[in-house]
Amino acid sequence: MSIVVVGTVAFDTVETPFGRGENVLGGSATYFSTSASFFTDVSLVAVVGEDFPEEHVTFLHSRTIDTTGLQRSPGKTFHWSGRYGFDLNEAQTLDTQLNVLMDFRPNLPESYRDAEYLFLANIDPDLQMNVLEQVRKPKLVACDTMNFWISSKPDALRKVLQKVDIVVINEGEARQFTGESNLVKAARQIISLGCKRVVVKRGEYGVLMFTADTIFAAPAYPLEEVFDPTGAGDTFAGGFMGYLANTGDLSEEGFRQAIIYGSVMASFNVEDFSLNRMKCLEYSEIQTRYRSFKGLTHFEDITY
Amino acid sequence: MSIVVVGTVAFDTVETPFGRGENVLGGSATYFSTSASFFTDVSLVAVVGEDFPEEHVTFLHSRTIDTTGLQRSPGKTFHWSGRYGFDLNEAQTLDTQLNVLMDFRPNLPESYRDAEYLFLANIDPDLQMNVLEQVRKPKLVACDTMNFWISSKPDALRKVLQKVDIVVINEGEARQFTGESNLVKAARQIISLGCKRVVVKRGEYGVLMFTADTIFAAPAYPLEEVFDPTGAGDTFAGGFMGYLANTGDLSEEGFRQAIIYGSVMASFNVEDFSLNRMKCLEYSEIQTRYRSFKGLTHFEDITY
Repeated sequence: MSIVVVGTVAFDTVETPFGRGENVLGGSATYFSTSASFFTDVSLVAVVGEDFPEEHVTFLHSRTIDTTGLQRSPGKTFHWSGRYGFDLNEAQTLDTQLNVLMDFRPNLPESYRDAEYLFLANIDPDLQMNVLEQVRKPKLVACDTMNFWISSKPDALRKVLQKVDIVVINEGEARQFTGESNLVKAARQIISLGCKRVVVKRGEYGVLMFTADTIFAAPAYPLEEVFDPTGAGDTFAGGFMGYLANTGDLSEEGFRQAIIYGSVMASFNVEDFSLNRMKCLEYSEIQTRYRSFKGLTHFEDITY
Repeated sequence: MSIVVVGTVAFDTVETPFGRGENVLGGSATYFSTSASFFTDVSLVAVVGEDFPEEHVTFLHSRTIDTTGLQRSPGKTFHWSGRYGFDLNEAQTLDTQLNVLMDFRPNLPESYRDAEYLFLANIDPDLQMNVLEQVRKPKLVACDTMNFWISSKPDALRKVLQKVDIVVINEGEARQFTGESNLVKAARQIISLGCKRVVVKRGEYGVLMFTADTIFAAPAYPLEEVFDPTGAGDTFAGGFMGYLANTGDLSEEGFRQAIIYGSVMASFNVEDFSLNRMKCLEYSEIQTRYRSFKGLTHFEDITY
C-alpha cells in the first residue's frame, strides 16, 4: 500500500561537535519519505522554491518517491539552521527562514486522494487538517508536531490530534502539550482526545508506544558514532509507517515490529549528515540491524 | 549464596513534588540489602550513630538481613537532605551531614569474609578497597560510586574499578568519569580498566549493560505514580545482585534476567517514600511485574 506524506522539504545548515553541513537536503517530508521508501511506495506533498536543485528531485525519484505533489513556488526553499552540543538529544535552532513555506497551500493530486496511509509530518496544524480533509478514506493516519505549534496554535493542533489514529510526538512536547510531567499520564491524556496510539520519541533513549491499555518500550540502538541526529524522528516515522503500509498488519504485534523498523531506520540515519547514510543503505543492513535489536533487548521469561 | 554489602545507613530528608519525608530511613546499604533480601541472604556493613532507632534494626532483621557488621559509633547517624523537581531523574542535594561516617573504618566480622558476592555501594573508594581486601575469595564483586568521588578521589576510585567484576554507575557519572560524551565509548573505556561488565543506570530511561562485545537494554517500568526516586539505584543493584547470588547463573542470560529483577525492584521502590513500599512488598508481586517487563519489551523476530 502507498503512503502520502505532507511536510517540509528544506535546506538545513547543521552544526554538531563532529562537523558541519551547509545547505544540505533536509525537511520532515524528505526524511520520512526516504525512510518509508525502503518498505513501500510513497507520495510526497511539500513545497520548494526556485533554488531547489534538480539533483535532489532526482534522488527522491531514485527512491521511487512520487513527487507529483511537490510544488515549486516562486522564492526560496525553506531553510533551517541548528546546532547540537555533545548532548545530541536536542537541537538549538539558530535560524528559521520559512520562505515559500509561508504561503504553502497543499493541494493533493487526484492520484493521492485514495491513499490508505497518511502521515502528517511536522507542519502548521491548519495545513495538516487541510490535507487530512483531502484524503477520502484513509485506513491509518498519523501525525507529528513540534513545540512551536503547541504554543502558537494549540487549538488547531488539538483538532488534528482528535482526527488521527496515531500521534507521534517528542517526550518534551508530550509533556508541554498536556502540562503533565509524568509521561504515562501525558500519553493517556493525548489518547483521551480520541487517537488510538501515542508514540513518544525520546531521542537516544528510544521510544514508548501507548494504547489505552498497553505500553511498548523500545530502546534506541546504542551507537559509538552519532554524527547528526537531524531527521531522526521523521526517519523513525518513515520506517514505522512504511512497514505498516507494507504489511497492512495493524495488530499490536505488527505495530511493535513497525516501531523496531522505525528505530532501525533512525539508527542508520544519525550515522552521517543529511540523508547521506540513506543514500547508500541496503535492505539487508536493515534486516541485520532488526536482528541486532532483538539481541539488544532479549531476556528469558521466568523459568520457575 | 549470601551477599555482603558495604555502604551507608542514613537518615534522609527528601522533598518531591508529591510530598516530604523527614529523617526517614535511607542509605545505600539499606536500600541494597532490603532489595537483595527478597532473593538471598544479605550481610550488611555500615555505621550508625547513637540516635539510630531500634525499630530500623528490627526492620532489617525482619528482612533476615545480618547486621553483625552494622557498627554503632558515638555521634549522629549520616544525614542526607535532597529535593527532586518534576524531573525526578536527578536529586538536588540540599545538605550532607557525614557525622559518624567521617571516621568509619569498616571491619568485617569473620563470618562475612568468605562471602561469594560482594557489593561495594556508594561510599569513599578507599573504604570500598579496604572492604574488598577483607573478603577472601569473592566470586563476584560489583561497585557503585558517585560524582563526588569521581571529582575528589579519581585515583582511588580507578583502583577500585580495576579490581571489581561489575561497575554499576549512573549515565552522567560514566560520562564524567571518562570524559566521553558517547555512552558506548564511555562504557568500553571503563571496561578497558579491567572489569567485565558495566551497568549504566539511566533513571526513568532504564539500564544499559555492557560487556566487551554485548549490549543489553532494559527500560524502566513506566509508572503513573512516582513518589520518590531516592534509593532507586541501590534497590536496582540489590535486586540485580540478589538474583545473581540466588541462582549463581553468571551467563549472559542470567545477567539479563538479573537486570530485569533489579529494574522490577527499583520500580516498586519509587512508588512510595523511603523503604515503605519494600515493607509491604510480596514476592508474587515481583514475579508479576517481571512478566509485565516481558510484555513491555517483547516484539516478534523477523518472520520472512
